[in-house]
Amino acid sequence: MATPTEEVPLKPPSKSAAFVIGIDFGTDSVRAVVMDAANGDTVGVSIQHYPRWSKGLYCDPRENRFRHHPLDYLETLQASIAGALAQAGEGAASKVRGIAADTTGSTPVLTDRHGVPLALTPGFRENPDAMFILWKDHTAVAQAERINHTARTWGGTDFTKYEGGIYSSEWFWAKVLRLAETAPEAVQAASSVLELCDWIPAVLTGTTELARIKRSRCAAGHKAMWHAEFGGYPDDAFLALLHPRLVELKASLGRETFTSDVPFGTLSGEWATKLGLPPDTVVAVGAFDAHMGAVGGNIGPHQLLKILGTSCLDMAVAPKGQEPERLVPGICGQVDGSIIPGMVGYEAGQSAFGDVYAWFKKLLAWPLEAILPHLPGADEASKQALADALLERIIPELERAAKDLPPGEDSLLALDWMNGRRTPDANQRLKGAISGISLGTDAPGLYRALVEATAFGSRAIVERFKSTGIRVDRVIAIGGVARKSPFVMQTLADVMNMDIAVSAAEQAVAAGAAMFAAAAAGLYPKVEDAQRAMSSGTEKTYRPDPERARHYASLYTKYLEFGAFVEKGLPQSDKTGR
Amino acid sequence: MATPTEEVPLKPPSKSAAFVIGIDFGTDSVRAVVMDAANGDTVGVSIQHYPRWSKGLYCDPRENRFRHHPLDYLETLQASIAGALAQAGEGAASKVRGIAADTTGSTPVLTDRHGVPLALTPGFRENPDAMFILWKDHTAVAQAERINHTARTWGGTDFTKYEGGIYSSEWFWAKVLRLAETAPEAVQAASSVLELCDWIPAVLTGTTELARIKRSRCAAGHKAMWHAEFGGYPDDAFLALLHPRLVELKASLGRETFTSDVPFGTLSGEWATKLGLPPDTVVAVGAFDAHMGAVGGNIGPHQLLKILGTSCLDMAVAPKGQEPERLVPGICGQVDGSIIPGMVGYEAGQSAFGDVYAWFKKLLAWPLEAILPHLPGADEASKQALADALLERIIPELERAAKDLPPGEDSLLALDWMNGRRTPDANQRLKGAISGISLGTDAPGLYRALVEATAFGSRAIVERFKSTGIRVDRVIAIGGVARKSPFVMQTLADVMNMDIAVSAAEQAVAAGAAMFAAAAAGLYPKVEDAQRAMSSGTEKTYRPDPERARHYASLYTKYLEFGAFVEKGLPQSDKTGR
Repeated sequence: MATPTEEVPLKPPSKSAAFVIGIDFGTDSVRAVVMDAANGDTVGVSIQHYPRWSKGLYCDPRENRFRHHPLDYLETLQASIAGALAQAGEGAASKVRGIAADTTGSTPVLTDRHGVPLALTPGFRENPDAMFILWKDHTAVAQAERINHTARTWGGTDFTKYEGGIYSSEWFWAKVLRLAETAPEAVQAASSVLELCDWIPAVLTGTTELARIKRSRCAAGHKAMWHAEFGGYPDDAFLALLHPRLVELKASLGRETFTSDVPFGTLSGEWATKLGLPPDTVVAVGAFDAHMGAVGGNIGPHQLLKILGTSCLDMAVAPKGQEPERLVPGICGQVDGSIIPGMVGYEAGQSAFGDVYAWFKKLLAWPLEAILPHLPGADEASKQALADALLERIIPELERAAKDLPPGEDSLLALDWMNGRRTPDANQRLKGAISGISLGTDAPGLYRALVEATAFGSRAIVERFKSTGIRVDRVIAIGGVARKSPFVMQTLADVMNMDIAVSAAEQAVAAGAAMFAAAAAGLYPKVEDAQRAMSSGTEKTYRPDPERARHYASLYTKYLEFGAFVEKGLPQSDKTGR
Repeated sequence: MATPTEEVPLKPPSKSAAFVIGIDFGTDSVRAVVMDAANGDTVGVSIQHYPRWSKGLYCDPRENRFRHHPLDYLETLQASIAGALAQAGEGAASKVRGIAADTTGSTPVLTDRHGVPLALTPGFRENPDAMFILWKDHTAVAQAERINHTARTWGGTDFTKYEGGIYSSEWFWAKVLRLAETAPEAVQAASSVLELCDWIPAVLTGTTELARIKRSRCAAGHKAMWHAEFGGYPDDAFLALLHPRLVELKASLGRETFTSDVPFGTLSGEWATKLGLPPDTVVAVGAFDAHMGAVGGNIGPHQLLKILGTSCLDMAVAPKGQEPERLVPGICGQVDGSIIPGMVGYEAGQSAFGDVYAWFKKLLAWPLEAILPHLPGADEASKQALADALLERIIPELERAAKDLPPGEDSLLALDWMNGRRTPDANQRLKGAISGISLGTDAPGLYRALVEATAFGSRAIVERFKSTGIRVDRVIAIGGVARKSPFVMQTLADVMNMDIAVSAAEQAVAAGAAMFAAAAAGLYPKVEDAQRAMSSGTEKTYRPDPERARHYASLYTKYLEFGAFVEKGLPQSDKTGR
């Protein structure tokens, strides 16, 4: 199967003297953009899907095991940059001054002593434990629980405190601990562990000494319990309680971490040649996608940026020094410099957002999927065409019908935990719920209640920030849902009772990477200056309707009560992970 | 539009010397059966739909106003008896010895001084307030609340105590009070109020003196607060607090009530001629459908009979005298002789049973109903045919897929209150709910949870009986769901942890009326003797699976907790009635 490629239509290229490249490694594909560093115009884009991942290789969804082969990244890295440069036109490559990459995370891999993922070395080429363990791999639930238990009971510092106080199975040390316990051969052969966002710049710069790999502050701080207060990663004594091998692996990580305005190095001769780029092109330190995306969406101090897709990520920034660093319990973490260097970056989020609507669509589609194919009569192709046509209309028709219903239609009230709860207060075993159902309840009413539920979940996160003393003056939204669903966005504004500005950036995440590339290359003194010059601004602002906001304020307290009851009292999954 | 008629295939007629006729007035249609009094063989059946009701006349579903014009009953009464006799064959009419009718209830009507419904008298022919107020008419919610409030606060006897302690808007005095308040002209013109089950025998016997109308013990005791302890209906002083006109109307009701083994009289000359029946044909005192249905389903002492249809009715019987009459709080009532004369009959029920499944089917059908008709392409007829074919398969496919799922699939737990809760502890404002939803939750899983919820609701009723000291040794089921859905019945047996015998009676309710006709006509000394001779026995018995029963016992406590929380804490409808 050929690797699928998407073409994105663009504005005509400008005549700038300097281009930068932002690369965004997502779950299914990588996207490279070539941007004009002067004004943020996108002059080239290329999206490449991971070929092995597309075939489902090395994964087992029943076990929540999700792995990426490093070759998927290497092949698409080259193809995406080449594709974006080709679209940018002749001469574009020679103008490139900097490259930065963001990636999913925590997505770690065991490496040899040169920082090469084990799956690229003999004996491990087909071994999933030698590949990148994707952020959403939940095989390490038991290990995360043990880390949490040990952190609270061992008698020393609670190293989870800057990560919301609850360590997740999605994160670095839980995954490494599971490998140490279940894949001793691979762990024995490994010299270190790298996050994907650290490996990509190492590849581009040809760095083969572990000690010279500049590890991401964002990744280490949010997922690996690195903090300046600890003098780096957690104490050896703490890690030794979990597994002795963790102490040795920790030693390979060094003590320093770096923000993404710092150059990792310059492009290796090999990659400069492959791509036709200047050999002095600066490669920036990497970071996670949501963090660079927040910069691309033009986040600033005391602002919250929501990335609204299948799930929701909430990024917030507050200046340092003006106040002592307050600990926000129950979020995904707070790290000096993880978003904007020199300020504290906060991460929170909802485990399902658009996925909640997709679940409801799939429910309504059940007769089309379970019954229609078996009906006698019409031929397969025309039945499939009909099902496809209906499926495509479900969400638009629900939106159309739901938007005219009163808030909390017919007493419906839902909880948005269909994929567990990420924040506030992570609990992956929680489930969703719907109350207030009458015989007259119909699909648009339920859809509206589900949209309200995801909005209540968003409000709960902002309330947590505020109650800890973190100011949130402004909300910005990026991501597919933000631009595609005015109904969801208006409901979000009404429920949060805040203006929500939708960024006009077509590819905010890759644009954020490009801004870091510009800063690291010295085109701007700071990334905030790159933001000012390159940001696409705001497309639209949703403002709360005062009457609906009042109604939702009272319904929100019911949402909290319902949630508290369900969390305490109702049967939850006994499956690990979900 | 011609009145639709349904033909029901039968066994060949037997050669008995005596036939009886049972007539069952339902919500949409009336069914007459001619039965062999010797063995219960059905020799003729005719079903007639109400012509005005079929057109939606005199009703307003938005207001929950549901009325039946008396002509709908009169016309179909004659047609159904004639149809059943025609099917029974030549000579059948001359063998008929008794007739009994059961009806919906409380379904009262204002009458003139001859017991003629006002809508059959000049000036009121098109006035809905002069027609029968169907059981499910909920226009009198405020009046029911006032009756409850007054009963608890007036300082005298609480006349609701034999009706579960909570008076319903569906019942006699609430409806009469509403008429007194909102239809003064009709109430002023009226001399009395009759239940439908009292009017039908009055019509058949040609009784035109109010004092000679033998009022049903079942109707008066369950819906009009009649009790021997009170010396009849509630005190004048109590009724006067509600409305002075109630005191005058009460006087027209007399003090006595009768069980349905008592002859009301014999057929009038006019009706004997119309139908070709012997003039000495005995007409029994009437009763409500569920009560005669329980007899037709072969209920006995310490047994619970469930009528499983769109809603569920629970009928139970306990001998008198062996114990003091214990008050069962929160049920629909307990009346000496309402089911089997000489024993206490108890009524309880669930406001929605099959309707819960129908609601889910309609939800899944939303794309077919809201989107499919507007899709371009195929012609209307073929789209409708496709939608119909899919609709018809939804419940069978859900049953097929759901039956193999483990109990409480994936932690799902639902409340069955989509139409409020009838018992235990009536609360029509309650709503349904579903918890434990994950992104993997699919339609069969939800369907299973909804079926479990209706079964938990059934269990709650039995538990209420048992906790009040009313023995329930055996459960019998009749009705559409009982015979059509093995999955629902098995789940019910597992959840209730009791054997459930499904009656083999094709038309248990009309058969019960026929048994009373036989008893009233003196063909048997008691209705229990008629039952023994005429019952169809048991078709199938569902026995609980011990492992599932254990699982459900623990899930049932969660159901109760969830219900208690929702009842106490969550937003409920602010609409009256539902």
